[in-house]
Amino acid sequence: MDEDDRGPNDTTLTSWVPVDAASDFAVQNLPYGVFRRPGQVPRVGVAIGRHVLDLSIVERAGLLPPMPEGTFAAPALNPFLRLGRATWSSTRSAISQLLRPGSSLEGSQGEVLVPQDEVELLRPFDVGDYADFYSSEHHATNLGRMFRPDGEALLPNWKHLPVGYHGKAGTVVVSSTPVTRPRGLRLVDGRPEFGPCRQLDIELEVGTVLGSSWPAGGAGLTADAIAEHVFGFVLLNDWSARDLQSFEYQPLGPFLAKSFATTISPWVVTLDALRPYLVAGPRQDPPPAAHLAATEPRALDLHLEVELNGTTVSRTGFAAMYWSFGQQLAHLTSNGGGHRPGDLLGSGTVSGPERGSEGSFIELTWRGEHPLRLPDGTERTFLHDGDTVALKGWAGGTDGRPRVGFGRCEGTIAPAREE
Amino acid sequence: MDEDDRGPNDTTLTSWVPVDAASDFAVQNLPYGVFRRPGQVPRVGVAIGRHVLDLSIVERAGLLPPMPEGTFAAPALNPFLRLGRATWSSTRSAISQLLRPGSSLEGSQGEVLVPQDEVELLRPFDVGDYADFYSSEHHATNLGRMFRPDGEALLPNWKHLPVGYHGKAGTVVVSSTPVTRPRGLRLVDGRPEFGPCRQLDIELEVGTVLGSSWPAGGAGLTADAIAEHVFGFVLLNDWSARDLQSFEYQPLGPFLAKSFATTISPWVVTLDALRPYLVAGPRQDPPPAAHLAATEPRALDLHLEVELNGTTVSRTGFAAMYWSFGQQLAHLTSNGGGHRPGDLLGSGTVSGPERGSEGSFIELTWRGEHPLRLPDGTERTFLHDGDTVALKGWAGGTDGRPRVGFGRCEGTIAPAREE
Repeated sequence: MDEDDRGPNDTTLTSWVPVDAASDFAVQNLPYGVFRRPGQVPRVGVAIGRHVLDLSIVERAGLLPPMPEGTFAAPALNPFLRLGRATWSSTRSAISQLLRPGSSLEGSQGEVLVPQDEVELLRPFDVGDYADFYSSEHHATNLGRMFRPDGEALLPNWKHLPVGYHGKAGTVVVSSTPVTRPRGLRLVDGRPEFGPCRQLDIELEVGTVLGSSWPAGGAGLTADAIAEHVFGFVLLNDWSARDLQSFEYQPLGPFLAKSFATTISPWVVTLDALRPYLVAGPRQDPPPAAHLAATEPRALDLHLEVELNGTTVSRTGFAAMYWSFGQQLAHLTSNGGGHRPGDLLGSGTVSGPERGSEGSFIELTWRGEHPLRLPDGTERTFLHDGDTVALKGWAGGTDGRPRVGFGRCEGTIAPAREE
Repeated sequence: MDEDDRGPNDTTLTSWVPVDAASDFAVQNLPYGVFRRPGQVPRVGVAIGRHVLDLSIVERAGLLPPMPEGTFAAPALNPFLRLGRATWSSTRSAISQLLRPGSSLEGSQGEVLVPQDEVELLRPFDVGDYADFYSSEHHATNLGRMFRPDGEALLPNWKHLPVGYHGKAGTVVVSSTPVTRPRGLRLVDGRPEFGPCRQLDIELEVGTVLGSSWPAGGAGLTADAIAEHVFGFVLLNDWSARDLQSFEYQPLGPFLAKSFATTISPWVVTLDALRPYLVAGPRQDPPPAAHLAATEPRALDLHLEVELNGTTVSRTGFAAMYWSFGQQLAHLTSNGGGHRPGDLLGSGTVSGPERGSEGSFIELTWRGEHPLRLPDGTERTFLHDGDTVALKGWAGGTDGRPRVGFGRCEGTIAPAREE
């Protein structure tokens, strides 16, 4: 076959692998993940429709651009993350060609193409450092109103820098990992008491996955330097124990209330796949300092949803985030701290301005004043044992544009362990 | 030679390797580090006097207890950290025997025993997650008085749990790595401005190095479970940009002000070596909740010093820390978060009650009210470019007890990089 000169984002592309219109994994997506067939070692693959393309086999067959041998036979994306933008893009192009009708792989079964429901999806990369931001103006305003009713909703620094904190990389888990209700010290009748969290919440976020690396002690990255340093994105649920948080967090910030589990989607959707969905972000006033200035488009037009036990309880958009992922990266490196491949940046809870567009239960229920009513007749303010929360997110899917999504990012609450 | 049945901590032990009385590295110490001979790959070694014993050679010669092949040929201690207490202790005993007079190694030179000043000392382990605490009552009280002069010096949670936050593992560097003055947003005449930090400070800390591992989702560790999970300790300098910190830290805690560099000593002194120096900690009132209760002795009797450009500016003791490292570990795992080998816990700044026993310049100078006068006639509130800060620390060294120390943990301030 002659090489097809359409780019991997061309909306007219089709694949010899069947892809439902409602699938997150159109041939324009090609998200990376790590999967394991029963009894085999983990390998890197790409999702296409209901299948996974085994990249370790494709690599061994010499069908990919030059890269260190066994890059995709690894149990994590990190060796690939290290290689940088040129290799990421050329690899994406090669995979796109292989999945188009008429490619040498067409009709391959079993070995190279495996149904997703026959494999286990693992955490796609080893997380270096995990930093979590607070970059939705609506979310920060909502929490400010709840926790500081007599003060300004936004603190004085909020519009000058993307406020953030460091999290615990070791507790980042992949979708479907059970989330055990944490225990901790919280106030009961005004006195600290140790026991199971009573205000277990979620935070709907999008995580930025860094590739390449940047040395410590150097200049910071600019907000426009994302191309070389941002590999892609995951959905991220920053499970939060609100009662533990309110007792522990002064003066050094959230600690154990957010470090028992952070769930990410099994699929990393690349920046390359999402380029057609970069859009202008909200106007920033005051204008950010020069090192945080970004040229537009800086925001990602993703539709996001939260599902509780099968009922969609929030629908929101990622494009309205005040601070963009590029600005978060510029901020994070502005002190000279550098970054490593596999570092993960949480966007902060994504909340919109309307009721039903908030990314946490504390906001959706306004601290319990308006509990959610579920179809089974029960109510929720915070999560019960056995509840399942699934985050979903995608770009496109309308006006003839393919759907470029993450799959589900879900977790079910297991009861607190007896001590 | 017959096996000598004295334990590795026996104060009468001597070595065939010469050890000065003032050395931190008596035969009772045997701290682990990672070193590199010029042109060779990094290996694990143990410090003895002015030398390093190359453990990769000792292991290959079959002189150590059973362990996975190449454990000490690794560029980091992590493979050894994974093995757990029984192997740590039997390995320590074997090394102690090999260094006593009459051992089969006596007189070995060149290959197995190399002068420290002929090698490069590297970061001894890959840091998993780094959490930093705030466990000195004097330090927390001093900072509370400075930053909240009208309120209670200690916040309501402080005596109920060891307050802490997560840091950035990727910026932990070994002693002698230059520390580039960070840049960031700080208030200048009341307005945020981006530029080099003007209030660069240190925090004198002791880091706890975790070995073994503990699964997420399980019960928390008890404060007495340290034996199986604490491998040892390092000196730790939590360099802090006070002006960046005061602008950024509300409401989510310190972020960029503390994630440009954290310096640790090249030598990890083991819990086994420090057992003779476990002492009772300060009385805790109110008594901690059951999951944080520790049986005594819970504290470590270390003498600590801060040297600025060769002048000792602070002398303090680690035994007075309100919350112990065992209690910090119990707290950290109490939410079910687990830990990995190589996780690092900063003690928090070690400050004593007397003038001259504080572990930071902001305390030593009381925010600049009492600048330090140096022998060269200059004054310091915060650090100047070119300044060198060295932390020192040891147990013993008096009353015929051997000195069990860390060596120097130092860094020199390099000017902020031009943007």
